Order: sequence, then C-alpha cells, then structure tokens
Amino acid sequence: MIDISSIEAAEARIRAHVRRTPLLSSPLLDRLAGRRVLVKAECLQHTGSFKYRGAKSALTSPDLPAGGILAMSSGNHAQGVARAAAEAGRSAVILMPSDAPKAKIAGTRALGAEVVTYDRRRQDRDTLGRALAEERGLHLIHPFDNPDVIAGQGTAGLELADQLADEGVAEADVLIPCGGGGLSSGVALALAARAPGLRVRTVEPAGFDDMARSLASGEGQGNPPDAASLCDAIQTPAPGQLTFPILSRLAGPGLVVGDEDVLVAIRAAFDYLKIVVEPGGAVALAAALNGMDGKKDPVVVLTTGGNVDPEVFRGAIGD
Amino acid sequence: MIDISSIEAAEARIRAHVRRTPLLSSPLLDRLAGRRVLVKAECLQHTGSFKYRGAKSALTSPDLPAGGILAMSSGNHAQGVARAAAEAGRSAVILMPSDAPKAKIAGTRALGAEVVTYDRRRQDRDTLGRALAEERGLHLIHPFDNPDVIAGQGTAGLELADQLADEGVAEADVLIPCGGGGLSSGVALALAARAPGLRVRTVEPAGFDDMARSLASGEGQGNPPDAASLCDAIQTPAPGQLTFPILSRLAGPGLVVGDEDVLVAIRAAFDYLKIVVEPGGAVALAAALNGMDGKKDPVVVLTTGGNVDPEVFRGAIGD
Repeated sequence: MIDISSIEAAEARIRAHVRRTPLLSSPLLDRLAGRRVLVKAECLQHTGSFKYRGAKSALTSPDLPAGGILAMSSGNHAQGVARAAAEAGRSAVILMPSDAPKAKIAGTRALGAEVVTYDRRRQDRDTLGRALAEERGLHLIHPFDNPDVIAGQGTAGLELADQLADEGVAEADVLIPCGGGGLSSGVALALAARAPGLRVRTVEPAGFDDMARSLASGEGQGNPPDAASLCDAIQTPAPGQLTFPILSRLAGPGLVVGDEDVLVAIRAAFDYLKIVVEPGGAVALAAALNGMDGKKDPVVVLTTGGNVDPEVFRGAIGD
Repeated sequence: MIDISSIEAAEARIRAHVRRTPLLSSPLLDRLAGRRVLVKAECLQHTGSFKYRGAKSALTSPDLPAGGILAMSSGNHAQGVARAAAEAGRSAVILMPSDAPKAKIAGTRALGAEVVTYDRRRQDRDTLGRALAEERGLHLIHPFDNPDVIAGQGTAGLELADQLADEGVAEADVLIPCGGGGLSSGVALALAARAPGLRVRTVEPAGFDDMARSLASGEGQGNPPDAASLCDAIQTPAPGQLTFPILSRLAGPGLVVGDEDVLVAIRAAFDYLKIVVEPGGAVALAAALNGMDGKKDPVVVLTTGGNVDPEVFRGAIGD
C-alpha cells in the first residue's frame, strides 16, 4: 500500500540529494496559451529527468536487497538508476533499446553503468531482463511498478504543493507526461494529501494513449504494436499494475497530443522559459498550449525530461 | 556610494518578484571541465536574463522620478526594463540596434515597450538617446552606471552566497560574463560582505576585453571600434564609471574567451544542464571549460542570459 507516508519517507531519504526544481512561467507563454501556465521544470533534475527521484528512493530503501542492480529503460530511468547506483557503490546493468537516443545511451554509460542493448522490434525486453537478472544475480528496479519508485516520484508532488501555495493557486489541473504512470500516480497521491484542489491529468502521445483509454473505460488497455511517436521516453505498452488503480481513483480524464503539438511545446519552452525539453517531456506543455481541455483556468504542467539528441532539438526550433 | 546596504535594500524591494535561480551542476560537466563546476542559471530569471533584477530595482527605487522610461540595450536590459516598467504602469521606450537578435526585439515589444531601432555602425547611441529623452520627457535607466541597477544585480550575489554555503563552498573564483560590469560589481560587493572567500572574475569575449585590460593596467581602456563577436549582449565600449572602481578593488584578473569556446559552452549547457544559454551569457562557462585560469579548484559560473535566436543555437548544438 503506497500512501502519503510512503512519499514522506522517501522525501526524508532523498531530500538532500534531489534538486528542488523551479516553477517557471512567462507572460509571453501565457499569451500563447491564452491562460496562465505554471511549469515545474523537472528537466533540470539531476540526470536531466524526474527519474532520479524514484531511482534514488529505491536505492536508499531499507527494502532493497544487497547486490547489483538491473533496469530496463529507453534512457531516463536508465540514467537515474545509473547515478543512484553509483552513489550507493553498487554496479548497474541497464537494458536499453538499440535505437534509444544517443544522448541517453552515452549518458547512462558515462554515469558508470553497463549498457546492454536489444532490438525492441524483435526481442522481448522482459524475457531478456529476467534472463540477465538470473544469470548475473541482479535486482530489478522496475521503472514504475515499484512502490519505492512511485514514492520517490511523488516527492515532486510535495514540492509542487508548496510552490503552488506560494503562488496562490489552490485549484488547477496538473498535466503530467505519462508512460507507465509512476510520476502521475506518485504526484496524485501527494496532491490528494497536501493540496486536494489540484487534480492530476495524464498526457500521452498519440498511439500510446493506453492510460487515457484505460481511465475512460475503467479497465487496463494496451497499445497497438505498430504505433510510432517522437516521444521515446513514454512508449509503454500498458498502464502499470500499481499505478493504474491510483490514477483511476485520483486522476481526471487523460489527454492525448500529436507529434506536431510536441514540437510547438519544445519551441515555446526554448523561447520563453530557456529550458531544454525532450519530446516525451513536452507532452503536458503541448496539451496546455493547444487548449485541448477547453479551459481557460490557470494550468500546471510538468516538463519531465531534457535528454534529447541535438538533431531532434534542432528540428523542433527550426523555422 | 553603493555598498551592501544598497543591495539589501534592493533585495527587500524585489525579493517577491525576482526568481531565485537554481545552482546547477552535473558530474558529466565536471568531467568535461576536469574540475567541479557550479552554475547559477540566471538565464532562468524572468525575461530570460539577470537584467530584470536591476531593472526591477530601479523601477521600484524611491529615487526614480515620475514619468516614462528610456533604456538603450541590445536586448536583455531592454526586456528587463520593459517588464519592470509595465509592472509599474509606466511607458517604456527602448533604443535598440537594428541588428539585435530578433528574439530580443520581439520580446521587448511583446512586453509592452516601444522599440526604436538605430544603425549601430552609423549612428551614435548616446546622442540619439539624449535627444529622445529630451523630446519625450523620458527618464533614462542606464544599463550599468546606475546605483539602483548595480544594487539590483547584486541580489544575485546574495543568493549565491547562501547557495554556496549550502554546498560547502567557502573559497572559489566566481566567473561572471561582463559587459559594462553592472552584474560583476554588484555581485562582488555582495560576496565581499557575505562570503569573502569567493572572488569575482570578469569574463569577456575577444575584441571586447576592455575590462580585463583596464583591470590589468589600473586605468579605463576602450575597445577597438571594428571588433566583432557572437556575444551581442556584452559588447560595451568601455568599463563603467561606477563599476570599474568597484571591480578594481574587489575582482581578480579578467578572463577573455573566443567565439569557439562560447559555442562549446552553449553545447555543454544543452547536453548536461538542460538550459538555453545565449553567447554572451555563456562566456563564463566557456572560461571554466577551457581551463584558461590554469586551476583545478571548484569554480562557480554565472550563465546570465538565454535570449538567443534559434539559428544561432542550432549552429552551436550542431555536429
């Protein structure tokens, strides 16, 4: 059972290590959106994404067995785990798709982890992961279906509750990029306890809208196997076992954006906020800017990662 | 006489309005530099540069006469004054070179100011500015030779003293991009009072190294009229009347970097810190990365602005 006390315990363990990321805004961004937009810039977190929170929480958990660590990730969880494992003096093996962004593979290696790549169109990640774990005696840290990871991601929600209280925002939707739902569910739990007028809404890329459909139908739904998206970080096959029940209870309807919306959001963050956001980290800002929720109220957005290859970024800010 | 009490007074006026910018770092950036590098990201300040601090300080000063405001700026002071003037309900006219970055001209207009452009190769800015001020009854806010502006910029130094104390850094060089020296002198005054083990060193682009030569010779030196640099924000003709004596007393020897160093720094900030830094805002990081000071000690850097045109940024992060 994950609840606010799990998140508070995680915060006590990781507070001195994670960065309290700023809440950014710009009157010119507000004008573009036609509403007030407050952006919590988790792309400025250590390792360039919120994933370090959950990884650090898991690596400092009293429940973690001794020994080496295994993670499976397209690159943000990979880097979070690599850094947290190195800080704990543990070895880490990360299973990454061979077509993951080069910046993510290089970053994971540079942080001291061993990277094993696989072909995500021909090989099954879970089968490979289990084999690796068994063969080398590694402990898997799941990217979202892990209570310590969810609790760690929830610490972003504790910060957000404080920051929004300072801004005088007591009621708003909080749009969060969603893959398996670890961040969304952790933040939803934190806000339900600390700032109940704030409501989490997941945002996914078209083709990977499993959470939106699952929330709408009340039952876990998968994605079509042939979907494609710019948003490498949040291409999960289906909602998590732990995360979906939390979001079913606490989140509003899910939102879905296209690649074009994402490119507009990356450019707006460059122009008005001076932050580097990767495609998967920009979907919530994209939803706020395209006005798809039909509202004019102030809206809160998380930009969750900034680990983007220069070619992709150059395309997004091109004319 | 500008001293720590001027900076404290400015801070009391502007604290609720300016953003406390984060101190960023990355083990991969440290590896690139061969030393620990701590980066205060003033590019995340409102309007995309530290200039909002000084502008807000001047616009809230009890010494400011009533009426409209005039500023002369290539774009960062322009946007800082435009926003602070709009917040104060005053009109602002900004005299900008016609070849200033498009993002800066557009940003200044979008913040509500009237922009008047001039040809900086053929027209004298000061003569034009005086004529405009007289004709339209405007009060000039100088970008650096203004005590309230220097005191406002110095508030970044108060924050830095606190942030470095939290990091356990009591002795280090603090490298600061330098045009007229408003930020460097304000921060130097703040650090001398609050953290005397921290020493400011100005960093300038090649061709505009007037402060470095002036500090070395002990007398104000100008720049050659035909110099060119990527660093539009810090192409000032000579050290300020108020700023130079402060820096003579408190700063270490000045540093100078080339355009190539600047491009490397912009790319490193993109890769490892996920911030957007403009050329003039990246010179201090450039100096830390190229090791030109010959030291291996921890070093502190300010990245002072992020208002860069996409074409320039795309070039910097290209392969």
